[in-house]
Amino acid sequence: MPEGEPVDIAGDGLTTKERRLLPALIVNTGEGKGKTTAAMGLALRAWHQGWSIGVFQFIKSGKWVTGERAALEALGAEHERSGTGGEVEWYATGAGRRWVRKPGAEPGHAHAAREAWAEVASRLAVQRHQLYVLDELTYPLIWGWLDVGEVVATLRDRPGVQHVVVTGRAAPAELVEIATTVTEMTKRKHPFDTGQKGQAGVEW
Amino acid sequence: MPEGEPVDIAGDGLTTKERRLLPALIVNTGEGKGKTTAAMGLALRAWHQGWSIGVFQFIKSGKWVTGERAALEALGAEHERSGTGGEVEWYATGAGRRWVRKPGAEPGHAHAAREAWAEVASRLAVQRHQLYVLDELTYPLIWGWLDVGEVVATLRDRPGVQHVVVTGRAAPAELVEIATTVTEMTKRKHPFDTGQKGQAGVEW
Repeated sequence: MPEGEPVDIAGDGLTTKERRLLPALIVNTGEGKGKTTAAMGLALRAWHQGWSIGVFQFIKSGKWVTGERAALEALGAEHERSGTGGEVEWYATGAGRRWVRKPGAEPGHAHAAREAWAEVASRLAVQRHQLYVLDELTYPLIWGWLDVGEVVATLRDRPGVQHVVVTGRAAPAELVEIATTVTEMTKRKHPFDTGQKGQAGVEW
Repeated sequence: MPEGEPVDIAGDGLTTKERRLLPALIVNTGEGKGKTTAAMGLALRAWHQGWSIGVFQFIKSGKWVTGERAALEALGAEHERSGTGGEVEWYATGAGRRWVRKPGAEPGHAHAAREAWAEVASRLAVQRHQLYVLDELTYPLIWGWLDVGEVVATLRDRPGVQHVVVTGRAAPAELVEIATTVTEMTKRKHPFDTGQKGQAGVEW
């Protein structure tokens, strides 16, 4: 995103340094694409800052996520080898099985999501990472696999400066309430979808 | 994004392989955050596929982009060293100077954007990359630094299977018209912005 020189004074009584240290809770939601990829892009920035990054996948996904995982883990390996960037830990619930759309149909998935959340909560408590990517966390919340109140309270009351990105459709209102940034990704219907052709007179 | 087993038959007469090879033109637009970061996340996926990636920054940006660049270039170096993943080439217009909000105020910026576009066009012609990230391309289009008709025609008529991601606010209608995917990133106003407090009775 383009940035000019800062022209606004926040007027919140904080020094620039203190303001920079405010912990972010970013929610990428909506029906469109880009929720997870944007979170992964943030992880690139965090890596360059030398931050410790924890990625937690709450839903088993398809092959694409494997690409993001491989790339971020390669960056983590680069950190191990040369000290460049930050460490990357990837925590995936279960392995290899496909996501199933029916909530409650597979208790194993609910169990895995609860395990993943317990891991996140324990790491937040000890300030293990500087950035947490909680990928697709909204689904176990919506489906009742995780208690929204408990998750929101844990995120809200997390100690220190730990940044969190949550992705997934239909973010619960209570989560939106405590977020510092909420972006809605919306699919614009493609003009061709409705049979519309290029307008006469358009030069191309 | 979670994926179940495919249940829809596209009915477009293409084989699965042919459909996979359809070149994508993805546009991330809107006023919200995540346009560039989502494009960078896609680059991670492309890297893992072993694709050649060209990133073109049309607007000089602040420090964050440096993080994305450093991380993607580290992945490119990993490719050089071990053959893992794909190559990454990063093309930034100019160096070091800050973006200035006034269109036309700095002819040097317009010139740099035109140079960057010429580079993209020549690479598309020879099918140099498999993924092009054209970051903030919409701004030189909106500001008249680049001819929309020419850019759209070049993208539309690009040979072979070359995937393109364009980012930036206010994507021109002609660009949206030829895109295969358009996502609008919208900032949801935060409840606290309007002085709203947590609702009484919410368990946390």
